[in-house]
Amino acid sequence: RHVPEGEGWVTAEYSMLPRANRERSRRDISKLKLNGRSAEIQRLVGRALRSVVDMKKLGPWNITIDCDVLQGAGGTRTASITGGFVAMMLAFKKMIANGDLAEYPVSGYVAAVSAGVVDDVPLLDLCYEEDSNAMVDLNCVMDDQGRLIEIQGTGEGRAFTIEEQQELVRLCAKGNQELLGIQRQVLGK
Amino acid sequence: RHVPEGEGWVTAEYSMLPRANRERSRRDISKLKLNGRSAEIQRLVGRALRSVVDMKKLGPWNITIDCDVLQGAGGTRTASITGGFVAMMLAFKKMIANGDLAEYPVSGYVAAVSAGVVDDVPLLDLCYEEDSNAMVDLNCVMDDQGRLIEIQGTGEGRAFTIEEQQELVRLCAKGNQELLGIQRQVLGK
Amino acid sequence: RHVPEGEGWVTAEYSMLPRANRERSRRDISKLKLNGRSAEIQRLVGRALRSVVDMKKLGPWNITIDCDVLQGAGGTRTASITGGFVAMMLAFKKMIANGDLAEYPVSGYVAAVSAGVVDDVPLLDLCYEEDSNAMVDLNCVMDDQGRLIEIQGTGEGRAFTIEEQQELVRLCAKGNQELLGIQRQVLGK
Amino acid sequence: RHVPEGEGWVTAEYSMLPRANRERSRRDISKLKLNGRSAEIQRLVGRALRSVVDMKKLGPWNITIDCDVLQGAGGTRTASITGGFVAMMLAFKKMIANGDLAEYPVSGYVAAVSAGVVDDVPLLDLCYEEDSNAMVDLNCVMDDQGRLIEIQGTGEGRAFTIEEQQELVRLCAKGNQELLGIQRQVLGK
Amino acid sequence: RHVPEGEGWVTAEYSMLPRANRERSRRDISKLKLNGRSAEIQRLVGRALRSVVDMKKLGPWNITIDCDVLQGAGGTRTASITGGFVAMMLAFKKMIANGDLAEYPVSGYVAAVSAGVVDDVPLLDLCYEEDSNAMVDLNCVMDDQGRLIEIQGTGEGRAFTIEEQQELVRLCAKGNQELLGIQRQVLGK
Amino acid sequence: RHVPEGEGWVTAEYSMLPRANRERSRRDISKLKLNGRSAEIQRLVGRALRSVVDMKKLGPWNITIDCDVLQGAGGTRTASITGGFVAMMLAFKKMIANGDLAEYPVSGYVAAVSAGVVDDVPLLDLCYEEDSNAMVDLNCVMDDQGRLIEIQGTGEGRAFTIEEQQELVRLCAKGNQELLGIQRQVLGK
Repeated sequence: RHVPEGEGWVTAEYSMLPRANRERSRRDISKLKLNGRSAEIQRLVGRALRSVVDMKKLGPWNITIDCDVLQGAGGTRTASITGGFVAMMLAFKKMIANGDLAEYPVSGYVAAVSAGVVDDVPLLDLCYEEDSNAMVDLNCVMDDQGRLIEIQGTGEGRAFTIEEQQELVRLCAKGNQELLGIQRQVLGK
Repeated sequence: RHVPEGEGWVTAEYSMLPRANRERSRRDISKLKLNGRSAEIQRLVGRALRSVVDMKKLGPWNITIDCDVLQGAGGTRTASITGGFVAMMLAFKKMIANGDLAEYPVSGYVAAVSAGVVDDVPLLDLCYEEDSNAMVDLNCVMDDQGRLIEIQGTGEGRAFTIEEQQELVRLCAKGNQELLGIQRQVLGK
Repeated sequence: RHVPEGEGWVTAEYSMLPRANRERSRRDISKLKLNGRSAEIQRLVGRALRSVVDMKKLGPWNITIDCDVLQGAGGTRTASITGGFVAMMLAFKKMIANGDLAEYPVSGYVAAVSAGVVDDVPLLDLCYEEDSNAMVDLNCVMDDQGRLIEIQGTGEGRAFTIEEQQELVRLCAKGNQELLGIQRQVLGK
Repeated sequence: RHVPEGEGWVTAEYSMLPRANRERSRRDISKLKLNGRSAEIQRLVGRALRSVVDMKKLGPWNITIDCDVLQGAGGTRTASITGGFVAMMLAFKKMIANGDLAEYPVSGYVAAVSAGVVDDVPLLDLCYEEDSNAMVDLNCVMDDQGRLIEIQGTGEGRAFTIEEQQELVRLCAKGNQELLGIQRQVLGK
Repeated sequence: RHVPEGEGWVTAEYSMLPRANRERSRRDISKLKLNGRSAEIQRLVGRALRSVVDMKKLGPWNITIDCDVLQGAGGTRTASITGGFVAMMLAFKKMIANGDLAEYPVSGYVAAVSAGVVDDVPLLDLCYEEDSNAMVDLNCVMDDQGRLIEIQGTGEGRAFTIEEQQELVRLCAKGNQELLGIQRQVLGK
Repeated sequence: RHVPEGEGWVTAEYSMLPRANRERSRRDISKLKLNGRSAEIQRLVGRALRSVVDMKKLGPWNITIDCDVLQGAGGTRTASITGGFVAMMLAFKKMIANGDLAEYPVSGYVAAVSAGVVDDVPLLDLCYEEDSNAMVDLNCVMDDQGRLIEIQGTGEGRAFTIEEQQELVRLCAKGNQELLGIQRQVLGK
């Protein structure tokens, strides 16, 4: 990756504590390998956050958003985006207060949520038990104009129809609308 | 991952030769790290292939599909799935001939293709130049009944509407239909 | 390390989240090296816990105590021992309830605390600001009979006299007495 | 670690040859991990040596003291400090002769020795057989004014009383006194 | 390796695809270790190419020759040298055309070939079956004046006499003569 | 490498201490990579020793010969073979005495020596200064019947003629004759 002179960059790191899930997982360092799932998720979170950041306005700063999962319960990848956006905005707020930035270098808000098909019923934001039994799992990263930034859907138990896929996108759009409202509340905007 | 006693597994490995792209890339081993993009792609290819394999019928065998890119030109991740399925079927054919398998342990065919938005126009299966200029890039892995197995879409240059997303899925469905026909030809079915 | 057939083992893992301290630290996996300080601490915690465990009674079980520091504030290495002992006892309790152990395989309690010299004054259990300014830092791991299991003292700012060392051990003995009481309360004994 | 501009640093590396002990050990590189015990010891040696070095006077130089154990026989960690100090002084001597240093950048001498409890008898500087049977093992790093720089004691076979601990410190103080005399002889001072 | 200011360097990387041989081999990155045989070969190829390059004339450029074996069939190490020299010359040609080099920075041509003893008969450039049965295997890297740059011979099945060694060198000299002719044809000289 | 059931294996490990040469080298573990030169040498030593060992007679034993260079002075790779053979024989002697082996599982002796061309004069067994100035360097591993097991020659400063190569082999044959005599003396045969 080549960052043009004078521009910034935003990246994310994602990791689960060994006991975040029901089964203890081994630490990456004991295997000398970054967990494949973590690698995939942190690339997704980074792309999502960068999609609304103006790197020229961010100037010479490199931002790293740490997403450490203390307890996993379904949806940590989308929560990392939704919460990571708030964390990034709070960092920008502090940087503006310190005089390190002139303004928020963002073009909009980003939130993400997942939906799934459980027992052939499309559901929004599955809890752990639902998530374990989901036949289909689909995440949408969206901006505050209801547009998609990223979509990822997997038929874990069975293939799914284009109609099901569209229904899941609609559910996610509704969920993200709600999350964007909460983000604005938290950020006082 | 815990594989039940007596069941098989299918996995994939993906790698680009250093000169596969216009800019030479460093080998993974010189950095002691599997490239993040490769890690993501080989997980996708493995999931796609496993979605149609009956692990009980595969019995005690572990299959590894190697996807080594000699020359990249847009679409290597979907080509790895479409071609990887053919490679897997040819391996099964040989195993049946050797008496290692009683029948093809698959429930259907899998193909994948990408579509993108270039200059606001949705296009199927972008070539290198189009791919570099794509604002949106979306891949669909589908089975031979036109159902989705996996969908991944990214707004690389800008966010995209739900309508654009639907149009891209339609294009991919058309492309996969064609690819599945070619797969049947190659496999003589 | 060779564990005799049929005996168990207790080990510990220690890690700080990147933002646990005022300065963000890089993750071990990004350097492919376990942090030297973490390596040292987890060996200490493991030795301390093993000192009161009867490996024959523990039978075929391997116990790993995870010490993940969410926020560091002075004394995380001794807190890992004091809290790790409680965690281990709670695990044993559950194993007894499940019929996996016949009785608690321990010969006593373990607690640890540190003391330091700040502005030439010996103090028990330094807070973050005191710790940063400490000229001498000394930890004692002790059992419930007031005996030492491990002692580690370092003159970070200056060398210290044998008398100062003795005073710090006395302070630690007093602190551990208190901690052992709290452990008994938590464990309901 | 951040070293202020213009200041030097002293560090140590410790390693045992595979056949240094009775049982052959695997090389670190074959496991891609620095041995935990080695990591701990080299941190100790580095801290001990740095405690008497004036980093401003050392100026822009980085010193690495290599402690490679050809044959282990009890006490290699303290021998690394006592001998490492002599090696460092000889290096400084050569640097002064070459005009790279104006004077010895040290505030004093450092030596280290261990003592242990064997069959309930406190003994100084255990040989291999004694060391293997020691119930308690305690090291003291001391300066030439009889003050402690670092103390580390472990009850390997059993816990130990505060009185035993103090007796072991007294023995170490006596041993270090002797070692400091030998260091002066070797260095011709 | 210290390269004097303003001078260039030539290095080589060698790797086999997992399926290049009859038995699939694991990728280096999955073991976190560069294959020992690959390490040995790429050092040989680098030395061979550097032997005819004038590093001062090469100026500030670093050249890496990638030798990726798609299908192995005996003699890939010598083919990497013979073909690598052509690749390097083609790169120099392009650099001269681009104005990055004033002239070819080489003092001569390099080619390499192997010979072996199969059933006590010395043979040039063994094919896969012969190679597998070879009792002795010897490679010669030579320049266009018939001089040796490197010689490596191994008795894989049995020791060999000095006379056999001389006969194998003679065969290699003949083979390299031929290869140098083909190189000149390819390079249009 | 697949070792047939019930057969043994001989392998070698080679490493230089950081201060073995005039310039201190970094430890492999700090780079997480086995030094390329070490990798090459230990493969050579292993091949040389295995060439005279009857793996069936060695039975179920795996032998590792450690070659750790305390001080390098030219010729450590051949000394590792010549000395490694003696070490291996001494190990076999002890195993026979212990009843672990019925007889020496070797078909002959192995020794190695190097020769070089310095100022156009072929010389046997170069010392450090000669080695540094050698234009050509050639090693011969030979058995006690004067046959070659391995030959490696490199033109480090210039290419060399076939006649020079043969003269160097003659010198090595003479040197190995002498070394084999010393080995027999040491081993009392």
